[in-house]
Parts: sequence; structure tokens; C-alpha cells
Amino acid sequence: VTDSRPVSIAVDAMGGDFAPSEVLAGVERALSADKGISVLLTGAADVVGPFAAAHGTRVEAVPTTEVIEMADHPATAVRSKKDSSIVVGTQLVRDGRAQAFFSAGSTGAAMAAATLVIGRIRGVQRPAIATALPTMGDSVVLLDVGANADCRPEHLVQFAHMGLAYASTVLGRVNPKIALLNIGEEPTKGSQLAIDAHALMAEQVPGFVGNIEGRVLMDGVVDVVVTDGFTGNVALKLLEGSSRALLAQVRTAMTSSLWHKLLAAGLKPSLSRLKRRLDPDTYGGAPLLGVDGVCIIGHGSSRALAVESALKVSAQAARGDLTGQIRDAVTRGRSAGPQ
Amino acid sequence: VTDSRPVSIAVDAMGGDFAPSEVLAGVERALSADKGISVLLTGAADVVGPFAAAHGTRVEAVPTTEVIEMADHPATAVRSKKDSSIVVGTQLVRDGRAQAFFSAGSTGAAMAAATLVIGRIRGVQRPAIATALPTMGDSVVLLDVGANADCRPEHLVQFAHMGLAYASTVLGRVNPKIALLNIGEEPTKGSQLAIDAHALMAEQVPGFVGNIEGRVLMDGVVDVVVTDGFTGNVALKLLEGSSRALLAQVRTAMTSSLWHKLLAAGLKPSLSRLKRRLDPDTYGGAPLLGVDGVCIIGHGSSRALAVESALKVSAQAARGDLTGQIRDAVTRGRSAGPQ
Repeated sequence: VTDSRPVSIAVDAMGGDFAPSEVLAGVERALSADKGISVLLTGAADVVGPFAAAHGTRVEAVPTTEVIEMADHPATAVRSKKDSSIVVGTQLVRDGRAQAFFSAGSTGAAMAAATLVIGRIRGVQRPAIATALPTMGDSVVLLDVGANADCRPEHLVQFAHMGLAYASTVLGRVNPKIALLNIGEEPTKGSQLAIDAHALMAEQVPGFVGNIEGRVLMDGVVDVVVTDGFTGNVALKLLEGSSRALLAQVRTAMTSSLWHKLLAAGLKPSLSRLKRRLDPDTYGGAPLLGVDGVCIIGHGSSRALAVESALKVSAQAARGDLTGQIRDAVTRGRSAGPQ
Repeated sequence: VTDSRPVSIAVDAMGGDFAPSEVLAGVERALSADKGISVLLTGAADVVGPFAAAHGTRVEAVPTTEVIEMADHPATAVRSKKDSSIVVGTQLVRDGRAQAFFSAGSTGAAMAAATLVIGRIRGVQRPAIATALPTMGDSVVLLDVGANADCRPEHLVQFAHMGLAYASTVLGRVNPKIALLNIGEEPTKGSQLAIDAHALMAEQVPGFVGNIEGRVLMDGVVDVVVTDGFTGNVALKLLEGSSRALLAQVRTAMTSSLWHKLLAAGLKPSLSRLKRRLDPDTYGGAPLLGVDGVCIIGHGSSRALAVESALKVSAQAARGDLTGQIRDAVTRGRSAGPQ
């Protein structure tokens, strides 16, 4: 069953390498695909005004006068550029005018704005960024992929609760399985952080199946994988880089002679499908889990497809009350854990 | 110019998933490929005896009565199984009878034996495991890939000195470039460990070009990449797993219909070449840097090709006096750094 209840999403029209054109194109696609979505578009008046005018009641322009650039220091920019498309976008969520916020702009600034303007869910120590990785099977939710470079074991336990809530609410997984990214399968393997986190997770996290090594991460054997934001960010970027490098090598191997080129031409459609399947764009944005409202952060290089996917994810997260689910999971986690 | 000076390598005939047959086959290949190599073969008498008898003066049998299993606790096993193929192999290096040691057995046990029996190079705080990763360009040396799950910034500086010595001595890189694996390019990005290590490396490490992100690691833009053993091990296994998964997907994409199957058949040779190129086997084993003798550790799944490559690397490391080069680099590093 398709859920098409009305949901209003604040969208930063100015964020991303290809803004505003690809953001607007993505909004357009999402509006066609999901009739329940309406959009509050923040950004320069001459960008958001005409687009809203052309889309009737489903798009409302929210003109802003400032833009946070990728080079700006996130927290400083959020404090000084109060009339920026990112800050105003998060205010719309805080004030209840939107049920979700999406930006493909500076990840740091979106995170800072969400934390400062909307605030954390009560009891959450550190919000985390999650992402859905393509695997041989179903996608796997990896978190934290960059919000917290240094973590304590209890942070990883909260990431686990939040990741599980995301997997059930947005990805529809039933009794999701969760693992800790580590360098061995045994509970005593790994860094001190990993060893301590393993012990806590074994006690407090439902569906915890133990450590998972990088070698099997892409096999899709679990629903959620937890790690600190340093390791998670390295892992994410490594996977992006290595798929790109590998597909380039496949292309070179296939076009090394005229004969090969002719053969390869026939295979192009199916390799393109594969490339799309591995393309982070189809997975649409990374949710910032732990803030008191749905916030989805897009890759800086988001094109229309990525924006469309992210808006669909935003709608699903809002409709499934992801924030409430996380609040409950964290509260349960706190009462389960040692006080 | 090919260096064919005589070099004697101690080889653990019992180590690895496919021992002894694939180890012996690899020794055979290395002996043919490099006429300077001779081998001291440790292992069960009925394995090493007949093989040595069949290979004249170039192979000497060193019968041992014990084997360290993958499931054994490394340090405990090294202490209790004194007559194991791994422990005796490292003793041959300590006693100067061999200039290098190779094992595809338990990485932990080989490391423990090397450290306990041969000892560390004076001034080295923590030995590290390095590995050469295939990239779009030349291979890149990544270390530490698992010896030290928890590191301090000064350890990473020593890893840098050791990695540079390996890149010049064994890979023949001139003025090798080195980077720190991190989650941003700016010096202030990353975990506290990464920030502190960056500051020290900028002061003390020649050829240091700053941080490198996972996204460009496979582009082959530097010769050496330094990280802690937790991140390095996760990265290594992730790359192994994702290339395997990706190549499997390419195969599926190419055989999704009879027509595609026919086309793909013609491309098979060039994809097999690619697979070989990405195969860790062609890169032959991971050197344990920082112990007072050349020790190369093979992947547990090493087949003859991997063993052959590892023995060639062992010979090159011994002939180039890798241990002496590391001793000099670490001494220079210590006098360059703050005392």
C-alpha cells in the first residue's frame, strides 16, 4: 500500500554543486511521483518565486537573502547567516510548518543548523548521520558516517537504537538485524572502543548479531551496521571511490580493442543498470538521526534523481513518525542500560 | 637490472588454508623465477623432507613437530608451541640462517613470533603491517592494516617512516609521497588522533602531502597512506569485499540473457586480466615492518601465485636491506622529532 498522506517538506533550493537547477528538477519529479508531498522552498527570491508561481498550491516560496557556502565554517555560518536557506529551512521544521527538511548543501552546516535550531531529541547524546549502502542483497544502513569523529561506547549504543528505528520506519525492515563494524568476529577483537561497544550492545540492543568485518559488509547479511563517525566516513568514501575506480577499469578492459568495443556496446544497457544500482543517488540522502525533526542531507553532487529519492525518503520518514520512533527507542535504551 | 644475489628465505610450509600443497607450489615457482633464492622449509617432516630431497641444494628441510592453528591464541601459542613451523621459521631469521621469513598462517601468531623471537628494531614502538593496494595507477602502500587497533599520534609518525622505507626499498619509488587517511582534506579535520598525527607528520615526515580521503585512495595519487590499525584493517577488508561484490554484479549484469552471455564470452579474457590485476595475490603478502628482520605475512587464502609473489617481495626486501633502511629512517625520525 502506498502512503500518500499529505506531508510538507522544507527544501533548500540553494544547496549542492548543481543547485538550484537540479534541486528544482528533483522537486518537480517528487511532486509528480508522490501526490501527498508539498514543498516549502527556501532560497533566493528570483529562484524560489517563479518556481512556486508555476506550481500552484503545492510549492510555497520562502525567500531568503543569504547562502551558506561549502567553505564557510558550519557553526559560525549558522549563527551569523540567520536568513540563509539552510537556517530558515530548519526553522520551518522547528515551527511545525514543515514535517521534514532536505538540503544538499554543506553537511556540516545542515547538521549544525538542525542541532542548534531544531535541537536534539531528549536523551540523545549525539546525533548521527546514517546512509543506506547498496549491497548484493538489500541495502544496509551504516551509521555514523561522519557526524562524530570521536565516539564513546555509549554513543555507539544510541546509534544502534536510532539505526534500528530508521530501518523499520523508513526501510520497512521487520526485526532488523544489527552488527558492529569491527576487525574480527570475536567479541574481544578490535580497538578498546569496539570491545566496549560490543559488550554494551550485546546487553542492550535487540537484534544485535555481533561484529561484522568489512569483507562481508557488502553481502547484505544485516540491516544496520554501527561504527564511529571516523571509521564510517572513511568506509563510505572508500566504497564510493573503489566502485568508481573498479567500474572505470571494467570499462577500460571492455574497450581495449575494436572487437571488444563492439561486444561491449551490446552490454552497455545492463552495465548502466548496474551503475545506477550502485549509484548513491538512487538511495537518496543521508538522514541526520537524533535531532527533533526529520532532516535529510543530500550528497553535494546530488542531481535531480538524488533529490527526488531524498524527498521520497523524507516523506516516508515524516509519515512513519521517525522522530517519535527514535524518541521511543532511545528512551527504551536508556531504561534498559545501566543508569 | 635484475638483482639475483643469493638470499635465503625461511618458509612456513604449514601456514594457510591451502597448505602445504599451494605453499610448496609457490616455492617451486619462486625458485624457477629467481635463481638467487634458496629456501629453508619449516614443517612436518613428511612434508618438507620429500620436497627438499627433490630440489637439491636450493631447499633445506627444517622438520618441526607442531603447528599453530588459526584458532590458537597467538601469543600463547608462540610461547607454548616452541617447535612449530612459525616459531622455528622466525628463529632461523634471528640466528642469521635466513634473511627473511614468510608464512601464510595465523597473522597474529606470525606477528607474535616475529616480535618475541626476532624482536623489534631499536627505537620502534610498534611494528605495523603494511600492504600494497592495487589502484588506478601504481599500487599504494597502506599501513597499519591490523597490528595495532589503538594507536597514538607518534605511532602513526613511525608508521610513516617505515612505510616510506618500504616504498623506496621494495617498490623502487623515488621521493615517495605519503598521506594520512582522514575524513577531510583540511589539517583540522578528523578524529583527535588524526588531527594530532597530521600536525606531527607535517613537521617530521619528508614527502608528507597532507590528508587523503577514501574517495581518492584508489586513484593512486600517493605512494604511502598511513592510518591506525583499526581503520586500516576495516579499509582493507572493505576493499576486498566490495571488489568481490562488484565483480560478481558485473558478471550477473553480463549474463542476464543469452544474448548478453554470448557478448560477454568474448570479453572474458580481458575481464579475467582485470580480476588478476585487482587480485591481492599478485601483490604478494604483507610485510611486518619494525621487527629486526624481514617478515612477510601471506593472506590465509594464499595460492601458489600469492606465495610466489610474497617470496619475490621477501627476496627484494632482504637484498635491499629493508631492515637497515627502516632502522635508519626511524633513527632519523627520532632525532627530527621533539625529544
